[in-house]
Amino acid sequence: MAITSRQFEQLQNRTRRSAVPVLAPTIPARRHQVILGIDPSLRGTGFGILVIEKPISRALVCGTIRCPATWERSRCLARIAEVLRDVIRQHSPTVCAIEGLYFAQNIQTALIMGEARGASLVSAAEAGLEIYEVAPRKMKQAIVGYGAAQKDAVAKMVQRMLNLAEIPDPDAADALALALTYAQTNSSIQTTSARRI
Amino acid sequence: MAITSRQFEQLQNRTRRSAVPVLAPTIPARRHQVILGIDPSLRGTGFGILVIEKPISRALVCGTIRCPATWERSRCLARIAEVLRDVIRQHSPTVCAIEGLYFAQNIQTALIMGEARGASLVSAAEAGLEIYEVAPRKMKQAIVGYGAAQKDAVAKMVQRMLNLAEIPDPDAADALALALTYAQTNSSIQTTSARRI
Repeated sequence: MAITSRQFEQLQNRTRRSAVPVLAPTIPARRHQVILGIDPSLRGTGFGILVIEKPISRALVCGTIRCPATWERSRCLARIAEVLRDVIRQHSPTVCAIEGLYFAQNIQTALIMGEARGASLVSAAEAGLEIYEVAPRKMKQAIVGYGAAQKDAVAKMVQRMLNLAEIPDPDAADALALALTYAQTNSSIQTTSARRI
Repeated sequence: MAITSRQFEQLQNRTRRSAVPVLAPTIPARRHQVILGIDPSLRGTGFGILVIEKPISRALVCGTIRCPATWERSRCLARIAEVLRDVIRQHSPTVCAIEGLYFAQNIQTALIMGEARGASLVSAAEAGLEIYEVAPRKMKQAIVGYGAAQKDAVAKMVQRMLNLAEIPDPDAADALALALTYAQTNSSIQTTSARRI
């Protein structure tokens, strides 16, 4: 918990009467500079690494983990975990923003979607990342300004916000958008809207 | 694909007229001797290692991966993957029987359930195991003889079938029951009822 200089002053005064430091020490909230965004799905998990910089943040890498329809489900899951593990090893993010509750058509879809999330989360958690869920509506609201925005619109805005040469693949763009949303919500004084999981 | 001796004979006759071997070569289906059963769930994943032996199969190890309610979801998933990885390393199973489609109350439950399955499957798939889904009803039918059997009944039957000193923990018993069901269905000539995933 960060305390304000005024609170610190009061605290100091209460315990003993002494010179009050001009600059009160603060306990800064951990600022994450390198963020991993993940948009999990069995056949096409999007991922992206975002570095927070001024005036413009930078995408270090982004891509989609494609698993052909002929692959068994378990093989896809192992692939997702493996690629994300490699990406984390290479770029050392300290926080992960993953797509939160998604509207699934039915139980079976939700189970498969959950499996892809599980595989992604294993890699992120084993690497010690702090993990936050960002709801897709929140992400679209933050990036495009409209909670029901299309994937294309998100991709175009991500390209513009990160000054990318090309429009990224839609799943990779979603992953970068999740990282951007986390960065935005986390930089404000209010508590983050992303839910830690 | 295994071919019958008759098919083999026909094939031989078609290509060239020669002596027909008395014993047609067969391509034997791979026989798994060490089976890992998994009953995945976020807070209590059951696992068990079964060794197929005559006249009675043997449980090498079984247990439940307990994750306290205070743990973040991602921490539970990492724990599930870690424990299963260790179990696989120690006992070298070649096949995994995992609980198949489960009736989830709602989408949220299915997503969380899916995450636990995903974490489990990553460990099994990365270790190169063949993975099969066994439907809970099939398992209960095979073990207790009644598709809607209670967990207690499954645990008691597992204890009896494997000659265990004590009744195993319900989740661990379910995992062993899945492995037993896989072993039973796979030993018959008919194709296995478990679905490879």
